[in-house]
Amino acid sequence: MSDILNQLDAALSERRHADPDTSYVASLHHKGLNKILEKVGEEAVETVLAAKDVDADPASREALIAETADLWFHSLVMLSHLGLDHRQVLDELARRFGVSGHEEKASRRS
Amino acid sequence: MSDILNQLDAALSERRHADPDTSYVASLHHKGLNKILEKVGEEAVETVLAAKDVDADPASREALIAETADLWFHSLVMLSHLGLDHRQVLDELARRFGVSGHEEKASRRS
Amino acid sequence: MSDILNQLDAALSERRHADPDTSYVASLHHKGLNKILEKVGEEAVETVLAAKDVDADPASREALIAETADLWFHSLVMLSHLGLDHRQVLDELARRFGVSGHEEKASRRS
Amino acid sequence: MSDILNQLDAALSERRHADPDTSYVASLHHKGLNKILEKVGEEAVETVLAAKDVDADPASREALIAETADLWFHSLVMLSHLGLDHRQVLDELARRFGVSGHEEKASRRS
Repeated sequence: MSDILNQLDAALSERRHADPDTSYVASLHHKGLNKILEKVGEEAVETVLAAKDVDADPASREALIAETADLWFHSLVMLSHLGLDHRQVLDELARRFGVSGHEEKASRRS
Repeated sequence: MSDILNQLDAALSERRHADPDTSYVASLHHKGLNKILEKVGEEAVETVLAAKDVDADPASREALIAETADLWFHSLVMLSHLGLDHRQVLDELARRFGVSGHEEKASRRS
Repeated sequence: MSDILNQLDAALSERRHADPDTSYVASLHHKGLNKILEKVGEEAVETVLAAKDVDADPASREALIAETADLWFHSLVMLSHLGLDHRQVLDELARRFGVSGHEEKASRRS
Repeated sequence: MSDILNQLDAALSERRHADPDTSYVASLHHKGLNKILEKVGEEAVETVLAAKDVDADPASREALIAETADLWFHSLVMLSHLGLDHRQVLDELARRFGVSGHEEKASRRS
């Protein structure tokens, strides 16, 4: 399954310097960090709205999955823009979980 | 690497019905969907702020990794609360990427 | 100065049922609550980004004023959509401030 | 009604340099811009969630009014922190509305 994240990161690196007119990823990098962060924020709000709608009607689960995919995708573009990738984030999650096996550490703030 | 996401989802399922007084995950489920979604929104904003700070000072990368981990962690709790998990989201990303290999489909909205 | 908010609310009420093809306000109401709330969330993120940029370069104050205006405007549309207006919000702020004159009450959560 | 915003801004200016241990406003300024912007983002998400709940149950209108008051309050603190106040934002809204009377200009982006 992680192959998907590895493939995504490989694709994001490859497309970063493609033609902004034909590549959505290249166009985001070309517009700059603020545009990428606007998208992260927008997708977070759309994810929250979709989750409220799933709570009211489970049939709308597909929309929530699509919005969460958008949120994760644009956060991967953000990491790529700043020279990072998904492995550092998963390492951090593993570190929090791995030492004691207590998920309590999954959030730094209690 | 995906082992981390699988282990996280397994831990999230196991802890969901733990004692809310000792488990952060159980406390989030106990407080309900709005509390979980508030956390998703908060962590998105903190991720955006950390990314702006990395742009100004690359030395603050660790903070961005930690905030992105918080964002992904709380979105996993959200999925778990609604009977979903990370596999559906990664499948959706794979579906968008896999058919043509064009990352242009990674966002449904052009 | 409050005349502006009163005039805005009057304009919002009047335009609510205008032609969605020619009125931005009518088009928001026509698209529904989720669209209006997406805009509130988007403008909040853009306000946060603009504020970070002012901190780095005071010359960009105009952009922050414009983004904050967008945020307040779309929150007024949200109130209008749900049968409320700015007066109830200002009354709430006055109530918090008025009793004791302590701004500590301005946030319900300490 | 604008008296409330004028009084709020006067109170915000006065309390900015108060003791952070006893004044919530002073504590926000003391913690710095990122903390203030985190609050703007948090309150925006809580406003969005409260609006969804009003849509499902009109009886929860009080919560939406309180969240919107929190959002506007923290955006006033943000303006104050950066040497601005509500008048510039209302002037901007008046400027957009005043020239032609078309609310279409209320959002810079069509």
